[in-house]
Amino acid sequence: MNGADALIETLVDNGVTACFANPGTSEMQFVAALDRQPKMRPVLCLFEGVATGAADGYGRMSDTPACTLLHLGPGYGNGLANLHNARRAYTPIINVIGDHATYHRQYDAPLNSDIPSIVAANSVWVKSADTPDTVAATAAEAITASYGPPGGPVSLILPADSAWLETKVSKAVASRPAPAKPDAANVEAVAKAIKAAAKPVVLIGGRAVRAEALVQAARLQAAGVRVMADTFVSRQPRGAGVFAPARMQYFGEAALADLEGTDLMVYAGTTMPVAFFAYPDRPSVLVPEGCATLTLADRETDSVAALAALADALSAPATGPSQPLKLPETAPTGGMTPQSAGLSIARHLPEGAIICDDSVTSGGGVAVPCMTARPHDVLALTGGAIGIGMPLAIGAAVASPGRKVVSLNGDGSAMYTVQSLWTMARENLDVTVVVFANHSYRILNIEMGRTGSGNPGPSASKLLDLGDPKIDWVSLAKGLGVPAVRCETAEQFETAFARAMSEPGPKFIEAAI
Amino acid sequence: MNGADALIETLVDNGVTACFANPGTSEMQFVAALDRQPKMRPVLCLFEGVATGAADGYGRMSDTPACTLLHLGPGYGNGLANLHNARRAYTPIINVIGDHATYHRQYDAPLNSDIPSIVAANSVWVKSADTPDTVAATAAEAITASYGPPGGPVSLILPADSAWLETKVSKAVASRPAPAKPDAANVEAVAKAIKAAAKPVVLIGGRAVRAEALVQAARLQAAGVRVMADTFVSRQPRGAGVFAPARMQYFGEAALADLEGTDLMVYAGTTMPVAFFAYPDRPSVLVPEGCATLTLADRETDSVAALAALADALSAPATGPSQPLKLPETAPTGGMTPQSAGLSIARHLPEGAIICDDSVTSGGGVAVPCMTARPHDVLALTGGAIGIGMPLAIGAAVASPGRKVVSLNGDGSAMYTVQSLWTMARENLDVTVVVFANHSYRILNIEMGRTGSGNPGPSASKLLDLGDPKIDWVSLAKGLGVPAVRCETAEQFETAFARAMSEPGPKFIEAAI
Repeated sequence: MNGADALIETLVDNGVTACFANPGTSEMQFVAALDRQPKMRPVLCLFEGVATGAADGYGRMSDTPACTLLHLGPGYGNGLANLHNARRAYTPIINVIGDHATYHRQYDAPLNSDIPSIVAANSVWVKSADTPDTVAATAAEAITASYGPPGGPVSLILPADSAWLETKVSKAVASRPAPAKPDAANVEAVAKAIKAAAKPVVLIGGRAVRAEALVQAARLQAAGVRVMADTFVSRQPRGAGVFAPARMQYFGEAALADLEGTDLMVYAGTTMPVAFFAYPDRPSVLVPEGCATLTLADRETDSVAALAALADALSAPATGPSQPLKLPETAPTGGMTPQSAGLSIARHLPEGAIICDDSVTSGGGVAVPCMTARPHDVLALTGGAIGIGMPLAIGAAVASPGRKVVSLNGDGSAMYTVQSLWTMARENLDVTVVVFANHSYRILNIEMGRTGSGNPGPSASKLLDLGDPKIDWVSLAKGLGVPAVRCETAEQFETAFARAMSEPGPKFIEAAI
Repeated sequence: MNGADALIETLVDNGVTACFANPGTSEMQFVAALDRQPKMRPVLCLFEGVATGAADGYGRMSDTPACTLLHLGPGYGNGLANLHNARRAYTPIINVIGDHATYHRQYDAPLNSDIPSIVAANSVWVKSADTPDTVAATAAEAITASYGPPGGPVSLILPADSAWLETKVSKAVASRPAPAKPDAANVEAVAKAIKAAAKPVVLIGGRAVRAEALVQAARLQAAGVRVMADTFVSRQPRGAGVFAPARMQYFGEAALADLEGTDLMVYAGTTMPVAFFAYPDRPSVLVPEGCATLTLADRETDSVAALAALADALSAPATGPSQPLKLPETAPTGGMTPQSAGLSIARHLPEGAIICDDSVTSGGGVAVPCMTARPHDVLALTGGAIGIGMPLAIGAAVASPGRKVVSLNGDGSAMYTVQSLWTMARENLDVTVVVFANHSYRILNIEMGRTGSGNPGPSASKLLDLGDPKIDWVSLAKGLGVPAVRCETAEQFETAFARAMSEPGPKFIEAAI
């Protein structure tokens, strides 16, 4: 057994059984070792940003890390943006980063770079296993660290000689640290403050928007406390039978208008809300002036238990509100819009579906009707780095066989990691990709006005417009092996989406909005 | 005038007139300011790895930096791999990285990350312009730093408020530090050692493989000194009328066999040759045992002057050998191979063409016949991070109007930055893209054997093979707006390549090898 075997044994033994990979020469021992451990599923991605986004989707759905296999510093760099998103989602991910043999590093060969420096910003843990005998223990430490709480991506650097040299240390055991128990006195203090407040809000995010937590949050709502959720969440159930908290608005002034009069904000699983971007003369902090703030449960604390204890302390009912099942009765007709697409999606989305959302300005049109659709999960863009919608879907599909995955994307976003389509085809994943093609970075047209930059002239327009030439999305998808259709009317989308939901395997729909 | 204006004025005033961009909200002021300074050419790239690779190609051809416009840490991350390559090419590049407003950083909004840490490994200079009044001076400092010598990518962080606030400091002047003059005593010592050596080799790289330096290197060859060039070079002239030094072999054992008996290695514009990767029981250092080494000119030193002085000291002839013009007389026939493609390329490549080479295992078939083709420049993959062939071509074409650009790519490599094709179409660049489609990471099949990992089994094969599904490259290229053709025979390629060379504008050729 060599170090690569020890690594894979340790990963598999601790439940890490999916590897999203784009290997190079320095990772060949790991690749070869995969043949000796069939419990690890290798998934080839044609670009590392696909691999890391897929590992994020996998981790969000399974609450167990996948591993990635990345080729030195540049390979990690290609995956960095989606690891930024994963860090913001607190998703456990084991990045295995191949490196030169330890004795070769000193020669600064062309692919050499300062890997620990490159990975630091988006890793909750970094270590290099510099001998084969330390690989197993280091891997176990990596897995433990990835769980946090609250968890996140870790970077395990594997020098080539640690992989190819023999070892007798074949595996090691990781642990999964439990979140902290809520402090009873703090819960009491929060309950007291809520009772005393005129207009309290409980803001939930992270683990506090998962299914069990929403049940407790609904009880707070039933007790008269307004419950709101973060704008962008790692994973949240939605639809019939699920409590639907109000959502923090994206734009700061809208958020503050919504919160007007709020005199207490209580955080569970999240922290103080802030504007996504700063703008001249607009607020950064999205807490009304004079509003008190308290933390019920930080990200390290068991937010389900904390919300339950708070509901009990407030003598809340045993159950709270939940969404009815209310599907749009008639198929939409007319022009192709995000709203008409949303109606079709709400009508045909099967129970247990997973929506991976990177649809930027088109997203709202889908979210509204899906509030009363069949129950499903939503994975959102937590870190603002576009290009995650299709990679997330790959990981969600690998983690959740039997569940239909729907990937919603802006065209600008989808181009970032368009290579994803090939992996969906290769693995025959049950993913339906929708690209809302407005041939523009539409959000930037909006943002340009908000930053006080004036109207775009010829040079600026050149950087916001995607319409010259118009991307032929159907041609791209077919070229990468995914059956594809372009929809220019609501009727066409209704037919295409209904069909995609009734058939397994990858499908691509261009919504020509 | 705001800080963004001051930045663009300073860039333009110092010769930085191309901006390869993928902006976001935090860069809107820069985008708006472009409308007020038409001397800066904005080029939209649909992925930042395209932008950074394009800036590399631009800098290699013009010896003046382009700038990039990148969206915070994740935007830089997406461009990191090609900046790794640019660092290894010592290419001056001004990366303008938009950041949150200075006062907003403290709130750790979703897109916030530790930008200085992420950029450090691949930047020769990093600074944040934290007030509008410092923007101009900081930009001038950035430009100066990018020149080195030997130069490289710099990272100028531009917080949004530094961009949008008014300033009266409208621009600043950068300087271009001259390389060090060669030390006469050192040149004498090297000459003496060469005279005393039985089998000396002068290894050239970096600036020492540029046109003027090759003229001097040829004189050394004429004086009986073997001249060799680095395996991967930033930019090197090739073809008729140009001196063709021997090339260091890629695989270490082949390199050492080639160097057998060499008792002195002298470096000019480069450093000690090392193996690209380490392998069990194979050498890291590619200098024969017992061979002495001397440095004639390090990367900071004027290597043209150093080579000239050495040639003079050795009483070398005034001119040395150069390649004849010898085009393949007949068009290739039969199967589609890299070799047959190489013959067609050599036949039809026009004088002054620029080849951007990311063709991995197919490259050799083209290089050999091009040794006697019409004179052209070759830009190679200096850092080993694949996905540079098409981005480099974008930058080379923007920098060199009137010169035909040919981008040679492996299919695995081309998928990394396939978004490049759209920018070629949008800018109507005179680039012919060739993708050698073997539907495999063929180099890894070779490397797997060399690392002693055995033959690939089912899992390993899944990570090396790209053939299931087969990518339809013509469909991809057309979908991104570039006319495309698939060639399955040498005759088809001959026709397609000849036509591409005779017509302006972007063309795509899949060589189905």
